[in-house]
Amino acid sequence: MQNFILLLQCRDQKGIVARVSQFILEHGANIIAADQHTTDPEGGHFFMRVEFRADEKRYDLASLREDFTSVARQFDGAWNLYNKNDILRMGILVSEPDHCLIDLLYLWRSGELRVKIPFVVSNYEGHRGLAEQFKVPFYFIPANKLNRREEELLALVKDNSDFLVLARYMLVFSAKFLKQYGRDIINIHHGFLPSFKGADPYRQALDKGVKVIGATAHFVTDQLDEGPIISQQVEHVSHRDDYEALVRKGKNLEKLALSDAVRSYLDYRIIRHRDTTIVF
Amino acid sequence: MQNFILLLQCRDQKGIVARVSQFILEHGANIIAADQHTTDPEGGHFFMRVEFRADEKRYDLASLREDFTSVARQFDGAWNLYNKNDILRMGILVSEPDHCLIDLLYLWRSGELRVKIPFVVSNYEGHRGLAEQFKVPFYFIPANKLNRREEELLALVKDNSDFLVLARYMLVFSAKFLKQYGRDIINIHHGFLPSFKGADPYRQALDKGVKVIGATAHFVTDQLDEGPIISQQVEHVSHRDDYEALVRKGKNLEKLALSDAVRSYLDYRIIRHRDTTIVF
Amino acid sequence: MQNFILLLQCRDQKGIVARVSQFILEHGANIIAADQHTTDPEGGHFFMRVEFRADEKRYDLASLREDFTSVARQFDGAWNLYNKNDILRMGILVSEPDHCLIDLLYLWRSGELRVKIPFVVSNYEGHRGLAEQFKVPFYFIPANKLNRREEELLALVKDNSDFLVLARYMLVFSAKFLKQYGRDIINIHHGFLPSFKGADPYRQALDKGVKVIGATAHFVTDQLDEGPIISQQVEHVSHRDDYEALVRKGKNLEKLALSDAVRSYLDYRIIRHRDTTIVF
Amino acid sequence: MQNFILLLQCRDQKGIVARVSQFILEHGANIIAADQHTTDPEGGHFFMRVEFRADEKRYDLASLREDFTSVARQFDGAWNLYNKNDILRMGILVSEPDHCLIDLLYLWRSGELRVKIPFVVSNYEGHRGLAEQFKVPFYFIPANKLNRREEELLALVKDNSDFLVLARYMLVFSAKFLKQYGRDIINIHHGFLPSFKGADPYRQALDKGVKVIGATAHFVTDQLDEGPIISQQVEHVSHRDDYEALVRKGKNLEKLALSDAVRSYLDYRIIRHRDTTIVF
Repeated sequence: MQNFILLLQCRDQKGIVARVSQFILEHGANIIAADQHTTDPEGGHFFMRVEFRADEKRYDLASLREDFTSVARQFDGAWNLYNKNDILRMGILVSEPDHCLIDLLYLWRSGELRVKIPFVVSNYEGHRGLAEQFKVPFYFIPANKLNRREEELLALVKDNSDFLVLARYMLVFSAKFLKQYGRDIINIHHGFLPSFKGADPYRQALDKGVKVIGATAHFVTDQLDEGPIISQQVEHVSHRDDYEALVRKGKNLEKLALSDAVRSYLDYRIIRHRDTTIVF
Repeated sequence: MQNFILLLQCRDQKGIVARVSQFILEHGANIIAADQHTTDPEGGHFFMRVEFRADEKRYDLASLREDFTSVARQFDGAWNLYNKNDILRMGILVSEPDHCLIDLLYLWRSGELRVKIPFVVSNYEGHRGLAEQFKVPFYFIPANKLNRREEELLALVKDNSDFLVLARYMLVFSAKFLKQYGRDIINIHHGFLPSFKGADPYRQALDKGVKVIGATAHFVTDQLDEGPIISQQVEHVSHRDDYEALVRKGKNLEKLALSDAVRSYLDYRIIRHRDTTIVF
Repeated sequence: MQNFILLLQCRDQKGIVARVSQFILEHGANIIAADQHTTDPEGGHFFMRVEFRADEKRYDLASLREDFTSVARQFDGAWNLYNKNDILRMGILVSEPDHCLIDLLYLWRSGELRVKIPFVVSNYEGHRGLAEQFKVPFYFIPANKLNRREEELLALVKDNSDFLVLARYMLVFSAKFLKQYGRDIINIHHGFLPSFKGADPYRQALDKGVKVIGATAHFVTDQLDEGPIISQQVEHVSHRDDYEALVRKGKNLEKLALSDAVRSYLDYRIIRHRDTTIVF
Repeated sequence: MQNFILLLQCRDQKGIVARVSQFILEHGANIIAADQHTTDPEGGHFFMRVEFRADEKRYDLASLREDFTSVARQFDGAWNLYNKNDILRMGILVSEPDHCLIDLLYLWRSGELRVKIPFVVSNYEGHRGLAEQFKVPFYFIPANKLNRREEELLALVKDNSDFLVLARYMLVFSAKFLKQYGRDIINIHHGFLPSFKGADPYRQALDKGVKVIGATAHFVTDQLDEGPIISQQVEHVSHRDDYEALVRKGKNLEKLALSDAVRSYLDYRIIRHRDTTIVF
């Protein structure tokens, strides 16, 4: 038996759930989990995630996709179907801070993140030992603000990953790079967006005297720290928390937000809608 | 147009969602929201909540129920169908502490809780003025541990309420009373169950030196502080929080947990299962 | 016996605590609680709050203040001394939303906020009944964006209050008004500052698709939603939370943040420092 | 310059702070941070933590201790003085679960925990590689419920550590072992104490249907899961969280609670009082 996941979005209309569940039943499958969301009961937008278990001897992903094409056409929907057994390749980009990197590597090795890690790319060579400990290929690309070395980077990641995670990668990508890569990129921003965009958000938070700090995992767009938010984590702070304490607490929030976002992504729980996300 | 809510539970099996959504489609209705849960993908138990919008001129609650009976029979399911427009009668019982009482009355008056409040019953006469301010009938029944006056109470609440809320009512009901009342009763316990059952949980928490306190809203059974949990709220405390501070912070947690539980109940989001709840 | 509270700030230097505690001992008093904070161990700024219990037959506030003047001069400090028994007059300004107003009134009546409430002023006449229920003088001043009626307001509040609370008052004050009033004003902003300043922060939060919402209590300055932050409260949200749900959850956060800020203020726990606060 | 930390507890009485701060001033030192707590303004117990910076050429720890002895005698206090530069030796004991172990090792290597780690002892040999990666001596002692090998363990840890951390060590120590070791032992319990003592607390939490789970770091006594609580962390859960999800969320809470407790311990922020802790 094999689990498949369907993500579907379309204009809200009668009969979607009936048709989708009929499709699943026709293929001898059983629904394991289903979530749906409608933005507005009157003429809104409809989102659905269904996980179902089918006999893979009888149905493979390609044939299910083919069969579903005509169903989706009825509702004029955008959709995709995934085989939960297929393991995605998650490329990691990271600058010097290592807390998110080691967290992802640990969660991967302990089996909590079911993913392949084809590479760790860094503009900080010091991570080589860590990557080797975890037996993950490591590439040092000395990118910096003056030379982001995007062509070199693209050549490395393009055919080698299904999505990228920026586990505290300090450089912004050009719109051209994003377009050429063409797949999802998840970033962790060490601040509570939309506050504190840009550099050193903990310093900004300290100067502003906020009583709560946060971290934000989001999809990357060509706007700095502006893509659809996937996960946010927050914690109370006080005047007793100096800069080092904010950084320390923040590191934990960053790990939580990023691993939460990656986990949702790997479970195909995220649907992008305009500048926001539905995370089922 | 009218919203209906179906709650269904049965042994997990193929085709449930297809059949239910087909039923809804046949009645010309549109699914507004749907949640489901399966305890175990292999031979587990299935739970479902569906909210759908139908033309009430064509279908009323009674006819929908009649029509659904045969559907449910196929799956050997326990179910109920509700008309979201029907307003439930929530009876309130309360002893001297007034914070949950006033919170419920406020939420009701401000329209956040769509409910009727047929009565406030108390063994503390001092709440009369408050009830009158909110124009809710008030009954003083001087029950205490020696004489719980359950017959008097039952006569008052039996035909007059769809469910009861114990908004800090300090007396335990007998199994006989619970059986005779026969409907749901929601209690707020001022502690983090299953810790700190019984009397003065804040004193227990202080003596134990816990660093987090909580409040628990749960269904009442004939076991003290033991029924299925609906909502729990928690907050960090420290040695700086003395007994008064615990009580003050706890009051807020109690209000949050109880209003959250009542809101879920009024939206028909709660399904009881053994000694636990599914809260969609 | 009587409790006094000393708030002191000065350049950090040796011997401050020794001198202050010696002062307290000389007056036969016992320290009940003491907090201090230094921004930087090397040449930073020093903040202190001490609560001590003295025999008020022997020492009244005026004589203690006189005696402390020479102590403070040694350290070139800014300071104040308060008698904890003196009850502050908290004036409330509020527009149509009533949740913070009723929360403050309830906390006051239940004894949790030890304060006098000399008036509720509103540009919404509908609160008159509520104020009367709590036996608090109510004044309707039909201020709006075109005519903020600040002179009328000032005449009402100037000699009649020790500080003001804007319990969701929708109008911004002019710098002139703030200067003429000359005392502290605490505002509740229904957003997580510094995000979402200005109008309808819940709409902004929804459009941005944030996964956490917040509320911020802060001192009022002549910059809109920019004064020193006193308390912030946050809660996770998801795509399931529509605008109404954000408002509902937000109301609770607003009540929590505002009552927390007012409680700290009444306990003389807040020291302003540049654009931030130390809240002991 | 050198930072020292004084922990003091005694019966509350006048003049303690004055005398202690005078002592610090006499030694030419400056108070960096001070916290105090009184259980009851009338005849309670007094607790104090003071961190001060002194010239270590003039005063070393031994002479400061000698000088303070007579001060403490005045108040009949229990106290200790620490040199913040002295680095404690933290021995780690761990069974098969590795998440707390790797978190402690990571925090140590990244400089967040200023501590020596003289050994990792485990009854699971599989951790050897991890310990070696971090260049920490590893000892495999195949203890189990039938043979806890306490003598062997004691021989290893007795002269080699200043305190022990049980980073998910599954065996209970005998009172004899605790007495012979004679120093502090910090344990992480994977449940919200005092609920869910003993084995498999996540299973207990699942069966009980709680809506919040927790983890508790506490000092070890000879009562199972009963020592003074140092830190507790909590997170909301729902019916969607199956056993694996509880374990996963719980792991994070365990890491947070344990590292928080260790950090407080290393900063000499914890004073034990009866069965509770004051954590400044």
